[in-house]
Formats: sequence, structure tokens, C-alpha cells
Amino acid sequence: MTNNLHGKNIIAGELKDGGTEGARAENPATREQLEPKFIHATESEVQQAAEQAKEAQQELLGLGPAHRAGLLRRMAEEILALGDPLIERCHLETALPEGRLVSERSRTANQLRLFADLLEEGSWVDARIDTAIPDRTPTPRPDLRRMLIPLGPVAVFCASNFPLAFSVAGGDTASALAAGCPVIVKAHGSHPGTAELVAAAVNRAMAAEKMPPGIFSLLHGPGKTVGIQLVTHPLIKAVGFTGSRHAGRALFDAAASRPEPIPVYAEMGSINPVFLLPGALRDRGMEIAGGLSASATLGGGQFCTNPGLVVGLDSEELDAFVRQAGLLFQEAAVETMLNTRIHRAYQEGSNKLKAVKGVEVSAEAIGVSEVDGNQGRPTLFTSDGQTFLGNPLLREEVFGPSSLVIRARSREELLRIAATLKGHLSASIHGSEQDLQEYSDLAALLQRNVGRLIFNGFPTGVEVCTAMNHGGPYPASTDSHFTSVGTAAIYRFSRPACFQGFPDHALAPELQDENPLGILRQIDGRYTRDPISG
Amino acid sequence: MTNNLHGKNIIAGELKDGGTEGARAENPATREQLEPKFIHATESEVQQAAEQAKEAQQELLGLGPAHRAGLLRRMAEEILALGDPLIERCHLETALPEGRLVSERSRTANQLRLFADLLEEGSWVDARIDTAIPDRTPTPRPDLRRMLIPLGPVAVFCASNFPLAFSVAGGDTASALAAGCPVIVKAHGSHPGTAELVAAAVNRAMAAEKMPPGIFSLLHGPGKTVGIQLVTHPLIKAVGFTGSRHAGRALFDAAASRPEPIPVYAEMGSINPVFLLPGALRDRGMEIAGGLSASATLGGGQFCTNPGLVVGLDSEELDAFVRQAGLLFQEAAVETMLNTRIHRAYQEGSNKLKAVKGVEVSAEAIGVSEVDGNQGRPTLFTSDGQTFLGNPLLREEVFGPSSLVIRARSREELLRIAATLKGHLSASIHGSEQDLQEYSDLAALLQRNVGRLIFNGFPTGVEVCTAMNHGGPYPASTDSHFTSVGTAAIYRFSRPACFQGFPDHALAPELQDENPLGILRQIDGRYTRDPISG
Repeated sequence: MTNNLHGKNIIAGELKDGGTEGARAENPATREQLEPKFIHATESEVQQAAEQAKEAQQELLGLGPAHRAGLLRRMAEEILALGDPLIERCHLETALPEGRLVSERSRTANQLRLFADLLEEGSWVDARIDTAIPDRTPTPRPDLRRMLIPLGPVAVFCASNFPLAFSVAGGDTASALAAGCPVIVKAHGSHPGTAELVAAAVNRAMAAEKMPPGIFSLLHGPGKTVGIQLVTHPLIKAVGFTGSRHAGRALFDAAASRPEPIPVYAEMGSINPVFLLPGALRDRGMEIAGGLSASATLGGGQFCTNPGLVVGLDSEELDAFVRQAGLLFQEAAVETMLNTRIHRAYQEGSNKLKAVKGVEVSAEAIGVSEVDGNQGRPTLFTSDGQTFLGNPLLREEVFGPSSLVIRARSREELLRIAATLKGHLSASIHGSEQDLQEYSDLAALLQRNVGRLIFNGFPTGVEVCTAMNHGGPYPASTDSHFTSVGTAAIYRFSRPACFQGFPDHALAPELQDENPLGILRQIDGRYTRDPISG
Repeated sequence: MTNNLHGKNIIAGELKDGGTEGARAENPATREQLEPKFIHATESEVQQAAEQAKEAQQELLGLGPAHRAGLLRRMAEEILALGDPLIERCHLETALPEGRLVSERSRTANQLRLFADLLEEGSWVDARIDTAIPDRTPTPRPDLRRMLIPLGPVAVFCASNFPLAFSVAGGDTASALAAGCPVIVKAHGSHPGTAELVAAAVNRAMAAEKMPPGIFSLLHGPGKTVGIQLVTHPLIKAVGFTGSRHAGRALFDAAASRPEPIPVYAEMGSINPVFLLPGALRDRGMEIAGGLSASATLGGGQFCTNPGLVVGLDSEELDAFVRQAGLLFQEAAVETMLNTRIHRAYQEGSNKLKAVKGVEVSAEAIGVSEVDGNQGRPTLFTSDGQTFLGNPLLREEVFGPSSLVIRARSREELLRIAATLKGHLSASIHGSEQDLQEYSDLAALLQRNVGRLIFNGFPTGVEVCTAMNHGGPYPASTDSHFTSVGTAAIYRFSRPACFQGFPDHALAPELQDENPLGILRQIDGRYTRDPISG
């Protein structure tokens, strides 16, 4: 296994190891170092990758959407063809169970194919044509045609918690390449070997599809050096990131203070509040306790959509819910967390919560782990509305398998709690139809602050589809206009361009009279797939 | 006239003058002060306006798109009903000719109606529905429905150069209200009386349509105090601005460094380069000289799309073009500029250009103005490629009626000049069909850096329509994803929200099974206006 990994940066298909610094990955279950050392990219290598990306940009555009779709499909195949060695290395680096990794790999391949489908259908470019009106007075109207074009080279940061689906060939890379943007990936220090294996698959796909090699590079190194160099490089035009609020904000700030600011799409997680309304607690309290415990402890609680806060009216039904959820938290598996830093942050966050007067540990998992490294113990906390409202610490995400249940004294206090919440990826409401009517103000209030509002469901399990919105108001993300999951993620990396008065043959096929691609367009404000009659 | 103006801030329909500071507008033609004094908003009045906007947000949403469309139509009517007094005051404050102001008023009304049309058609919300698949394995797919919702209260800054179409009820306000966002307008110090008159019309329209008064306020005061207070207010969620790069960047920086960063849509103008290719110069040189001179001197050259740079191959045909354009610049009217500051900046910019070695004044308008205030003299400069490439000053916008013609030594030098250009609102290419083929690399290069690429036309005259893109890469705008002109401007002020598992009756009409509004939606990835069959 080790012998197959070279530990070098991959720039436009070539291996580069000009640097002297480097680091090994760590097995989070045992804290053992894993071979080989991964060489950090030098500033000149960052420069090379950016220049290669810029050079490749025009060629990529010339190849057209069908060609890009072919690349994405081939990438899916090549990643699946990596077989067991990918899963094994990835498990060593992340401690994520092999079953989870196999399904994450399927998701990764499916994402790539979903964007290929989108390109082949073609209407995503939002083509708009206003035909000329030469005899209009006082001035004629020119012929105006608009479509989306690529922003330019994109820096993609691998995410610790999704080594495949949000990493080298994950959703950010898939949507950026689909939009026609070259990609430079910064590997995550926790799973650089996984990154190298996937990058090799990407390079095989690119060679098979005769793509310009500059459209893809993989760099290793710390976020504070290599990451910031990428984000502040003048040739980089956008950034995709999934991770902590601290790191995401640092990238956002660096990008916003450039001479030419660029967009950073940072998805920074949230506590995903869950509201339990009286009818639901009465009718299905035990069932909801089961769903919540499963959602909160799934994958070591290391999902951006992990439900970290539960709010209900103080009642016998809520007491019964807490008891039942507590039993399930006690029985939950004590899993190894993704890395030592994340484990330490979970410990610290939990300890801070425990120290707050008015916060109680209602239940802790009793399981014993077979290994002794970075195991995170599922914990269910409880508190009351007054404590929550008086202590901003309770609104902060504790990344890991814990949830905090708040007993609200009244409907008013429950609404006050909802009103204090900042932007979240999701919020969930459990209720009967009658609850939903009686608490319509709660739904209206939450809608303003979240990317996705869920009724009688749990936030984990983010469907990759057309209607998904995985994002939301700050600090859930740095740009609430866009989702990082689903087909609409492509809009992060494209922008409109308008062509005025061009002859038909000089236009992209999407804008030509005949509509050779058969896409849906707006012609003189009307949606149609018809050609323009001469 | 004066007696009809109160000079107060208008907050949610109420007049407020708690402040002690204030300023009068100035007649730019004569530099005389115009009555009355306009009282600057206090910080507590900014706070009141923001709170009223937040309060009104939910109510506005509840009223639905048809109601918002009704408001926009009524606003158009009320603005037209202001009649001559509006045009007279606006002319006094801006020195813009009455004919131009009458047509700008029509444009303003038409913009409002265009957004009303968009709301009534309804498909702009980009509704996407992925229906549930309860029997999918290993996990069922939930019902997911996504549409665009309003961002929240928006701060709109009036533009000096469009006192009607980009001011109190201009494109930013129209698109923000259309999206469902309350608006707080900051008046421009050059035309506060125009602002007050239009705001009164807006308030009459709001009363007639029974709108919550908090959705609209008008504040007076400097950008550095009242403007920054607005942009940094926690309840403000987006900003629309048209003006200088300096002011736009200051607002962008203030918004990006907030605890919760918000988007600033600053359209900051550009020099809108025009490339003259050999065939066009040969076939239509004199005609192009006429079009260029008209475009460059129109409205005192005070359009964002003013063509400030012209590039052609050094040749007899280019010499003839310069001679002809020079004659037309000599004959061009010497018009009063919008205000003293803009006039001074034009003088300074022109003087800086004149001082550059290798830059020549090819022609200046010879006309004499009837008044003696802030008159800007149309000026045609010439220089060569080497001087241009060696001097970054020549790439800076000089806002006013001047153009700089660059003689490029070769095709390569012309392309090098194109490659040095940063983001622009537009670029224009004049050429024969053969030119366009031979210079396809020029078109490809320009496309990357501009919002709109024009063939055989001139950049002024920005059509308000579906396909327009008025924006582009920085520094043309701070967010190249969006246009500030045309129907797509609404997307600046809306964001997606996803609703998972909600019963049909609790969803907005746009997302209900029956599709009661008959809008175009994506259902399971397919575009259709059909209802969902049960």
C-alpha cells in the first residue's frame, strides 16, 4: 500500500516535490503516523498550478459541454475502479467505517454523473435572447443574447469529514469542472493518501478524454500557507470550502481583501435546531427520540447537518422523550473521530457545556472502544430556556456526537429561543398538522434563517438532487445565494455574459438561432425550446 | 417649488428630522445653493428605519407576488403623475437636459412594470421539486421543494448620474421590492429634492396598495456616516450601489468585515474599450467615428458605459478615423456636468492624461457654454501602444466626455493591450465578418473580462430587458454573478430555501402540487408547468 503512494504534488499531470516541508497522515484510531510523507507545495508550485489552470481555461471552454460531461462520467468510472485500496487507505486515514466509505464513494460517482446529466440536458446555462427590433423608435433595440460562462480557475479545499464526496473529486470539483472551470485542489492533511489516489483516477480520466492537463492540480500543505497563497493568487477566481467557521472565515477575509475580491463559498456547518411541538411529542415522542439519537450520533456526529440543539415545551412528554433519547445515547457506539484536533475540540466543547450552570449531562454512551485514540463519547445534554437565552455559548456548534435539549417554559420562550438563532444549514420542526398551524410564526421565523426547513424529519442525509439547498445565511455559509450540494451548486462557478449584435455563427451553440442543443431558453421573455425563425 | 419640499427623512411613511446637520443641493450649472436644507438622518433614525424594515419583512412576504406587482405598477403611475415639477427640480439639481430626464422617467416607470410582469409570470422563483421515493433503498428519498425567497431589508444608494432610473425608485429598488425585500434608500447629496418627490410618490403608491409602511424609507446624509451606518447595520441584508470605484469598494469592505458579511452589488463603471479591426475601419471608418463620438459625449459622457478607450492598428484608416472623430468632438456640446466634484475629477483626470509623455490632445470641443459652472469639455486623446502598456494611468476611467485612441503597432500589440484590461462592463469590437474570424482570440480574451461583448455597436444605451447583463468582473462590479439592469437583477436580492416533507397546504403556492400559479418548475429534474399528479 505505502509503496504505491508517492507523496508528491500533482500539477497539470506532473509530479512536483520542490519543497522541503511535508507531513504524514495519522491513523486517528491509534495516533500512529502513516507513510509516506506528503511534500508541501512551494509558493512557486502554487504559481505553476495557477498558470497552468489559466492556460487550460480557454481550451476547456472550446471543448464544449458534451466533452466536459464525458470527463465527469469517466472520472466516476476511474474512481470506482480504484477498488478496495481506496477504501482501505481512506479508512486508515479517517477511521470512518468501510461501509460508510463505500457508500460515500457511490455518492461521489453519482454526483459526477448528475452534473454530466445536467450538462447533457444543457438548459442550466439560463440562455436568454432578446431579438433585435430595428424599427423601434426613438432607438432600435439591438440583438442581445445572454448565457452563463465559467468564472475561471477555482481553488477547492478538501473537507475533513467527507474524504471522497467533498474532497478531490467531490461536489465542489464536480460542479466547478461542469461549469467549465479548471480546479486546483488543496488536499486535507488528515487524508492526503486518499487525495493522491483519487487525483490519480482524475488524471487517468483526463488522459482518456484528452483534456488539457492544466484543468486539474492537487497540492499538499497547510491552509495558512498553501491555502492562503491559493486564495490570494490573482489567477484564482473562486473558492470552494467545507469546514470550520474559523477556517472558512479566514479564507473569506483573505479573498475579500484582495485587490480583486473573489467569492468564497464556505459551508461552515451549524447546530441545526430541532423543534418538538406538543402534538408530535404526544403522538410520536418515542419514535422521534429514536430518530434524533440516530441522527445525532451517526458517523460520530461529524456531519454538518448534525442536530445539536433540540427545543420543546417543558412537559411530561418532553421528560419521557429525554429519558428515551438518553437510553439510546447510552447505547450508542463510541466511535473514533476524524482526527486528533477534531477529537480535542469535541472534548473541550463538551467540557465547556458541562461547566455551564443550568446545563446537565442527561446521558453518556457507556460503550468501551476497542482502540484508545480519538474516541468521541455520545452525550445528551439538557438545560432550560432561561439558561439558553442567557448564555451565547449554548448557541455554538460542538462538532461531534452530542445534542442539547432545551426545556422551554412557554410558547413565547420557545419563540424567543428561535429568534436568537443565527443562520443555520437547516432547522427541523416535529409537529402534528395542528401544531404546524398553531406555530406558523415559528416556521416563518425559522425560514428566514435557514437554508432548509424540515417537517417531521431529521437533518442528516443531504439528498444530492435538483431541489436540495445545502447552505443558508451566515454563518451556515458565506453566500446564501448558493448551495454546495445538488445541481444548483454549478451556479457558484459561472456568471452571465451578454453578446450584443454578433452574427449567429460566432455565437456559442446555446445562443444560436437554430437552438442546436435543444435547450430551454427565454426568447423575448418567453420560455421555449423552439428555434428562432428567421 | 421650494415650498413643497420639506427636506426631512421619511421613515416608514413618517417625516423625521431629529438631526442637526443638513445640506442643500447645488445647481451644478451655476453653483448656486438650492432650498431647502435636507436634514441628515441620525444614527437612531437609521436604527428606526432598519427596525421598521425588519418588522415589515414578514408582512410583505405574506402579501404575495401579485400584491407586490400591484405596488410596482402603482409606483410607476404615481411617478409619472409627478409631472413637470419633478423634471424641473431634477434639472435644477443635475443640469441634465429635460428631454433626457423625461426619457429617464419613462425608463424608470417601464422598469417598475417590467418587474411587475416578471412577478405576474412567476417562474423567476426557480421552483424545483424532487418528489418523495418512500420505497427507495437503502434510505427513502424525502419530498424536497426549493424556491427563491427574499434576502431581507436592502440598502439602496442613489446614483449621481441617474437621478431617476438608478435612484429612489430605480432598478435597485424595483428589483429589491420585486424580490420581496423592504428597501431603505440613501438619497444622493446632488439630488435630494428629486429623491423627496419620488419618495412621496412611492408612499402614495404604498398607501393605495395598503402596503406595510416599513418596506420603504428615505434617508439623507453623507455616505461616510449614514451610508456606512446602513451597510453595517445588522438588520440590513444586502446593498445596491452605482457609482465610483472608491465609494463602491468602501461599502464592499465595510460589508465584508461585518460579523455577518452581506453582499454589496456595486456597479462601479469602467472604460468600456472599443476595438477597431482593419476591415471595419476600411469599410465604415467614418460611420464608426460618428457613432463613437456620439456615444462618448452623450449626456456629458456621464454614463457607466461611456467608451473611454479605443484601440486600432496604426494605419492610414485609423488616422482618417481620428481626424473625423476629432471634428465631431470639436463640434460636440460643452455640457454642464452632474456636480462640482465630478467636474473637478474630470478636469483632474484630463490634466493627468495631458501630462503623460506620449499622450496627445487630438481635439477639444470648441463650444462656449451659456453658463459658467461645471462644464466638461469633450476631449479626444491619442497615444500609442507602448505608452499605453507602460503606463497604468491610461487604464483608469476618466468619468466624463473624453476618449483615448491607442494606435497599436501590430496585431500582437493590440492583443497585449486587450490582455492588460481588467474587468469592464462592456467591450466592443468593430469588424467585418472576416475580422471576427481572424481576431477570434481577441473576442475570446475580452469575453473573460467583460459583462457584455458588443459587435459593431456602441456600449451606451443599456437595454432594460431579459437578456441584458450590466455588470461584470471586478472592478466593473463587486459581484460578477449578477446584473443591475434587466429582469435578472432580481436575483441579487433573493436566495434559495428548501422545504422538506411539508404538507401541501403549508407550502407557498409556487411549490404546491397543483401549481396554482401555472409557473415553470423543475419536477424530478424535468422542466414543466404541469401539476404533480397525486
